Order: sequence, then structure tokens, then C-alpha cells
Amino acid sequence: MISFSASANGMRGSEIRRLMALAADPSIISFAGGMPNNSLFPVADVDAIWNSMSQKAKQDAFQYSPTPGFPPLLKSLSEYLKSKKLPVDKSGLIITTGAQQAINLVAKVLVDPGDLVITEYPSFIGAVAAFKSYGADLRGVSMDAEGIIISELEKTLARASRKPKMLYINTHFHNPAGITYSMARKQALIDVLAKSNVVLLEDDPYSELYFDNADASRMTPIAAMAGADIPVCYAGSFSKIFGPGMRLGWLFGPREIVDKCELAKQSMDACSPAFTQALAHEYLVRGKLAPYLAFVRTAYARRARLMLDALRKNAPAGVSWTRPRGGFYVWVTMPESADATDVFNRAIAKGAAFVIGSAFDPEGKRNNCLRLAFSHTPEDRISEGVEIICEAMKAVLKAG
Amino acid sequence: MISFSASANGMRGSEIRRLMALAADPSIISFAGGMPNNSLFPVADVDAIWNSMSQKAKQDAFQYSPTPGFPPLLKSLSEYLKSKKLPVDKSGLIITTGAQQAINLVAKVLVDPGDLVITEYPSFIGAVAAFKSYGADLRGVSMDAEGIIISELEKTLARASRKPKMLYINTHFHNPAGITYSMARKQALIDVLAKSNVVLLEDDPYSELYFDNADASRMTPIAAMAGADIPVCYAGSFSKIFGPGMRLGWLFGPREIVDKCELAKQSMDACSPAFTQALAHEYLVRGKLAPYLAFVRTAYARRARLMLDALRKNAPAGVSWTRPRGGFYVWVTMPESADATDVFNRAIAKGAAFVIGSAFDPEGKRNNCLRLAFSHTPEDRISEGVEIICEAMKAVLKAG
Repeated sequence: MISFSASANGMRGSEIRRLMALAADPSIISFAGGMPNNSLFPVADVDAIWNSMSQKAKQDAFQYSPTPGFPPLLKSLSEYLKSKKLPVDKSGLIITTGAQQAINLVAKVLVDPGDLVITEYPSFIGAVAAFKSYGADLRGVSMDAEGIIISELEKTLARASRKPKMLYINTHFHNPAGITYSMARKQALIDVLAKSNVVLLEDDPYSELYFDNADASRMTPIAAMAGADIPVCYAGSFSKIFGPGMRLGWLFGPREIVDKCELAKQSMDACSPAFTQALAHEYLVRGKLAPYLAFVRTAYARRARLMLDALRKNAPAGVSWTRPRGGFYVWVTMPESADATDVFNRAIAKGAAFVIGSAFDPEGKRNNCLRLAFSHTPEDRISEGVEIICEAMKAVLKAG
Repeated sequence: MISFSASANGMRGSEIRRLMALAADPSIISFAGGMPNNSLFPVADVDAIWNSMSQKAKQDAFQYSPTPGFPPLLKSLSEYLKSKKLPVDKSGLIITTGAQQAINLVAKVLVDPGDLVITEYPSFIGAVAAFKSYGADLRGVSMDAEGIIISELEKTLARASRKPKMLYINTHFHNPAGITYSMARKQALIDVLAKSNVVLLEDDPYSELYFDNADASRMTPIAAMAGADIPVCYAGSFSKIFGPGMRLGWLFGPREIVDKCELAKQSMDACSPAFTQALAHEYLVRGKLAPYLAFVRTAYARRARLMLDALRKNAPAGVSWTRPRGGFYVWVTMPESADATDVFNRAIAKGAAFVIGSAFDPEGKRNNCLRLAFSHTPEDRISEGVEIICEAMKAVLKAG
């Protein structure tokens, strides 16, 4: 009889995992996976990079990297972050094993069991799981088309019996909501947090994936706007701009927090893979990122258009959805009485899948929404898949 | 003012980190780093592997892998583990981000703050740090040339006011002690643990690195000997048989423990790098491991011989050291009154470095020992470096 820790006793294989496993059947048209389609990866760039690296550079890629990161990548990544107006000279920076690890580390150094953590509703499933694994007490605050609703956030802050440890948000092309914070909402959020001194964890993996170049100027991270007003931890990722299989992300923010995260990382995985850090460094310094982004922005814009067109043509009355201007996701909202699991069961029987809304509710209650990812599905099957899901929604709404 | 978690408040940049930073100066002959020399990595194998992978296989390498691991690698690794007589069909297996993550995950799912964890003295610094990060109360049990001293372990078990959660050991070519468990000691350990039902975490990253082929038969993991008598978690690593920069290890053991670790891993880093998992899979199935091991065994044996010869010629009276038959390390013991930090300070002033013994004491007290790693130092500087350290020991012993 194994005696597990309190944290392990709280973990279980969830309903979501069971549904995701069903969605992984290759005969299913799946909008479940929040990842790029394999055909979109910059394979030729890595071919060219690896084959022109010196023997010494290749050997370095086989070795441990220092815990904070492979020094050349820390330098090239700093240049990239400077171009986003982030206060690089005044902040800490470490390379992490995906942004998931950055989120996990911030939770580890801030959260004790029972501590209050505020997220948006809906929120990223991986962040919610990380916060729960440290025993956080979660509250979800609703969003509108411009971001978290400030009056709702103020109410939640006022009602809290003790100061929340952190607010976690996803600023641009939100996972799963598909929305982007307006510049005004970002500033309003800074103003509210400045009064409460809650740490902001800003997760920003999608901001490079805007469909319209005119939106580029709206992509300023809150971490670049906040100055010394509030402590902002900024988590980023190479997963959407290079490849998730590299397992590279970063944590940028106040030195005292990032230093603690580095200590925690040391005993978590010692360092992130030097092998893929070396490739990412070459990818940045050889100027491969900009042309790759131009390519994927077009590809994702086309996919989003196919999905939005199919929703417009097929969605039943009473259903609404977000119109993403970038990223991977459309968030579909049914009337409150409708259940996304019913829709899932009907849709998968006809050959299409998605992720049910309750997966993204930090409080695990609401299930009248669907997350549809257009990033991974073969382009020529998007319309057909959306039609199947719309038919399933119709049947559920009629039955209800 | 940031309010950190209890776990983060316990973390600090240690004295060891300061000394390691001094040892990193390239003008220093350093025996501090427990890693391969860069010249020894199988670069040509990876050149050949990458350039002959199909476009589809390369694309798969850019994608997320499932949390338990890249399915082809799970299969090829299982074959490898079967060849070590491990009970693959009855056990759980996940790929981890280095063996460090495997150790961290087992601690996460077993240890609550205040729980008792037993290690050897001396013990691996990364494991000790991981256990401490979950609030473990650590006890170190002494070793002799054949492994942990059974009578001492029995005393520690009998004295414990509550059942320890786990015993952590390093079976072959111990880090830092350089010793290897005899087959008799492994069996004696199984017999003791069978009575106490404590989980054994067997960390075995060095067993392939024997210098003498006659020793191969002594490398049987306890996890292969224990049957159903005791729960054994077996952590392994690609770091010493392929390259640490791949960040790949594994956790093998009872399904109920490994399943919990998989859930914890999901919110820790989602998955290990598919990119390096794909390379490691090809490395295994193309039969590159066996010839590489033949090559590095000879290289490390030569390095160990140089170090042991230099110790024999130069070490002062009253100092003893282990004679490793494999792996990376020699453990040097001075009289109890001598202080390794004094030796370090004198040696580094003359141009040589190592890791002081207190780094490996789970109770952080004893500091009369030195860990010398012969794996990373340029071969032609090993004798000179050992001479410097022996001179420093002489000076300290004389002064004391």
C-alpha cells in the first residue's frame, strides 16, 4: 500500500483526458489539439542550421546548459524581448522547459496550499492544473471581447478574505477564448493591480500569430507597459514560433521571483535541453523567425477563415462565438442550459471532436462552451468538421 | 514586497553554487563538473541520424509528444530495459526531462512537508535538493565499499518515529562515492526493505560505464531483483550514454506510482522534448549505443587510471579514496578534523577545483571529503590537477 503525498492524492486522470483520447483517433476530424499542424514546422531551417554548425557548437549542444539557460540563447532571446519593449536590463530571465514549466515554477515559488489564485474564466487548462498541483484555491473572473472584466475583478478582489497570491492571464489570442486584450483594458488592469499589489503572471505564447499586420501594434505585453507599478512575470514560448517538440519557453520578470524560480528549476530538471536551445539560438540569430512567422500567419489566418465561415453558415440560433484575429482558437458559447459533453458525444459519433468548456473553468462548473482549435486540423476538413459539430449543437439545443 | 511560498522561502543560493562558479573559470583544472568531456559526444551519429530521417519523422520531432513519452522511444527503451532483466510487462514507464525530473516527480507524489526520507551518506546533490524542495526531513546512512551499511540502515529505520516515505540510493559507480553495490548487498537491502515496505528509489545513471567487461554481470539493478517483494522506482538517464543536452531520462516502476508521476509531469512541463526523443529512439534502434559505450568505457577507464595513479603518488598520509571500477567519480576522505573548504580555497588559488564533501551530506554537516570527477577534465591535465589538490590537502592537514 503506497502512501502518496496530499498533492498526489488530489490528482486524478480526468474526464477531459478520456475525451482527448477519443479525439486522438486519426479517423476523427479533431479541433481538440492546441498545436500546429505537422506540415507547418520549419524543418528545412533546422536542416540548414544543424548542417552548418561547427563541430564545437554541436558538441556544446550535447552538454548540460547552465540552469538559467544556454548563454548564447539567453543573449539572442534578450535581443528579441528588447524588440518587444520589455525592460530587459532591469529584469530576470531564464529559459524554461516550455512555458508550462515557467507557469509551474511561478506557482511553486508563490503558492502554498489554500492560497487564493485568480484566473480568467475561461483559462488555460495547463495553468489551472499547475496551480491546483500546489493546492491553490482558484477563482475565475469573466471576460468580454477586450479582456478580463475590470468590475468583476474588483469585486473578486474586494470579496477575498485574504490577498490573492497571483492573477494569471493570457493577453493575446487567448487560449481558449480567442480574444485579445485591448490597450485600454491592459492599462485598466495595471491600475487595479497597482492598488492591490498582486503578482501578475502574463502568459503570452500567441502574440506573434496575428493575421493582420495592422494588429502588430496592439501586441504590447502588459509586462512592457507596467513599469515599476506592479510585479509582472511574463511567460513566453518557442512552441508556436518554432516547435513544441523543442520544449523551450522562458520566464521574464522581477529578479527576486525569477531567481527563486531558477533555484526551483535546478532540482526540477537541472536545465532545459541544450540541444534545442542551440538550434533556437541559431534560428533567432540567422533571421529565420521573421520569414517563418510571415508564413504561419497566413496559414493560420486561412484556417481561421474556414472555421468562421463554416460557423456562420451552420451554427444554430442562440449560439455565439469569438472572432479571433490571431492564434489558434475559437470559443463557442451555447445557452447556459446546454451541455458541451452532450455535444461532444454526438459529434464524435459522427466523426468530429473538440474540447468541452468545463476543462477551462478553474472552478470546474460551467460546461456550455466549446473550444475549437483550427491550428492542427487538415485544412480541407475544417468545414466538414464544423458542420458535424453544428449539427450536434442543433440536436442538443432541440433536445434541451 | 513579494510573499513567497514556504518552499521558496527555504531555497537559497548556496555556498556550493559560489564554489562551483569559481570552478567554472576556464583557466582552472576542474574536477567539479560531473559531466562528460565535450569531445566524447557522439556527434557523427546524430549527423547521420538527422540527415537520414524522413520528412515525416522530422516533423514529428517538432511536435508535442504525449506526456508519458514519444511512443517509438517508449518502445525502443522498453526493449533496452528488458535486456537489463527489468519487469517491463508488469511496470509503468515514462520518459522524463533527465533523471533529475524522475527523482523530482517521485518526491512530489510521495513526500509531504516533514516526511522522513532516507538517503545514503554521501548522496547525489540534485536528489537531496529535490527532496528538500518538498520539505522532506532527511537522514543519511553511511556506506562501505559494497553499498549502504545494512546494520546502520536497520538502526535508522528502528529509530524513526514514523515510517520513512522512501529510501534513495545510487547503485552503481555511485555519485559521489564511486563505489558499486555488491550483489549480496543488493539482496540484503531488498530483505530489509521487504520488512519495512518503504519505497526504494534506485537511481542508476552510470551502470553502463564499467571499465572491465567482467563487471557487466554485477550491474543488475535492484529493480530487476526485487520481484514483488518491495516497490522499486528505477530512474535512468540518457545523459551518460548519449548526452545531457538531450535532457532525457526515465522513470520505471510500480504502475500506481508512475501513473501519479505522469499526472504531475503533465502540469510540470507537459512532455519531454520530442526532438531529442526522436534522436534517442533512432540512436537505440540503429544500434549506435553499443559501439559508443565501448568507446566511452575505454576513455573513462583511462581517465580514472590517471587520477588514481596521481592520488597514489601524491596523496598525503591519513587520506583514503575509493577505486571506482566505472562511472565518473573518486571520493577522497581526509581525517574527520580536516575541512574540505580549506582545501578548496588553497587548491583554487593554485589552479585546481573539485566539489566539497558537505554538498553531498543530506544533513549538511560533514565536510572532510572531496569529490573528484575525472570525466570532464582534459586528460592531459588530470595528473597536474590532482597534484595541486594533494598539495592543498597536505597543507591543510599540517596546519590542522
